[in-house]
Amino acid sequence: MKQDKREVPIVVVKRLPRYYRYLGELLRQGITRISSGELSAKMGVTASQIRQDFNCFGGFGQQGYGYNIEKLYNEIAGILGLSHGYKTIIIGAGHLGHALANHSNFAKRGFELVGIFDKNPELIGTIIHDLPVRSVDELESFCAAQSVDIAILALPKSAIEMVVPRLVQLKIKGLWNFSYTDIAVPDSVAVENVHLSDGLMTLSYKITQANPKGE
Amino acid sequence: MKQDKREVPIVVVKRLPRYYRYLGELLRQGITRISSGELSAKMGVTASQIRQDFNCFGGFGQQGYGYNIEKLYNEIAGILGLSHGYKTIIIGAGHLGHALANHSNFAKRGFELVGIFDKNPELIGTIIHDLPVRSVDELESFCAAQSVDIAILALPKSAIEMVVPRLVQLKIKGLWNFSYTDIAVPDSVAVENVHLSDGLMTLSYKITQANPKGE
Repeated sequence: MKQDKREVPIVVVKRLPRYYRYLGELLRQGITRISSGELSAKMGVTASQIRQDFNCFGGFGQQGYGYNIEKLYNEIAGILGLSHGYKTIIIGAGHLGHALANHSNFAKRGFELVGIFDKNPELIGTIIHDLPVRSVDELESFCAAQSVDIAILALPKSAIEMVVPRLVQLKIKGLWNFSYTDIAVPDSVAVENVHLSDGLMTLSYKITQANPKGE
Repeated sequence: MKQDKREVPIVVVKRLPRYYRYLGELLRQGITRISSGELSAKMGVTASQIRQDFNCFGGFGQQGYGYNIEKLYNEIAGILGLSHGYKTIIIGAGHLGHALANHSNFAKRGFELVGIFDKNPELIGTIIHDLPVRSVDELESFCAAQSVDIAILALPKSAIEMVVPRLVQLKIKGLWNFSYTDIAVPDSVAVENVHLSDGLMTLSYKITQANPKGE
């Protein structure tokens, strides 16, 4: 597979994880080919959008013959960088960090969880997902030894300012930020902010549309 | 504010929570007006998309004068149904449910957490976010008494099939589904599925683009 930098528009990129999940599900069901029309019906996306999106990175479809699911799946994995096996740590072993560590999908998606950190002495030394919770004091030595790629920030806002500059110093490549606050990092560090309540607001919209008088 | 059903395209709806968060932040900073250009720079969205999006529900901008932030904020809240004060329960008091209960933004966004349920006897009776964890056996009596609108499903896949039909029977209006599995419900029940790992995959893409050779 080509490893060169592809020019896929960011709106298409944002849709790739969802395609990836659906195609993976089809593969697990033993399905090898699918038409854009069938995929459209499954995913609730128009067939023309699917065709346009897949054309951004080569297509893999033949008229009347459908898409080769495995090729498409592997190509999307390549674009998303899932084959790199990025080494990942979680900072914050509270309920959120614990839930994320137990989220089996991360390993399935190619991310290797190598460490969990906290500053709370009651949590340090406990075992989560087969890993001992380490003191944040060990962050520098651990990351240097393990060449960690991604840090998941499962920390409250109040703790974030202490940790982020250290991670930048450690040349962490990406931060997945659950702290619900903006973080300032150099452009060399990729950041994905999670805003869980956006999903709850979208749900609220759907309910309100179905019950227009607020009943 | 008008309570009639508006026709806002779903792609615009999906962007509304983000606008809502940004406008709320501006209000808290005491800012009352903003131009589409300034908002564009803050949000990393084109000014023309902002203008188009806001035009979908009336606009509230005057040429050269900018948007009235408070009006726009309240209008978006109305469209999203945030003023309804939807009563919400969490099913699953494990780490994820616990983390969600402590997520202060939900109350700030107008959702009232009224109950937390689990089937684990060790969790039942413990206090999370000032609420006692109740047995799932109490679901029917509790929901009938409280007229619950939304259930947050912080359950493993294996438990989901037992609970969803009961919630449908109870005429719950919306399900926020963290179980990473599809659920079958009638059209009268709104569903918003959460796929946390999509965010991690998007982060992976950003890292890979910044380090094209996988370094």
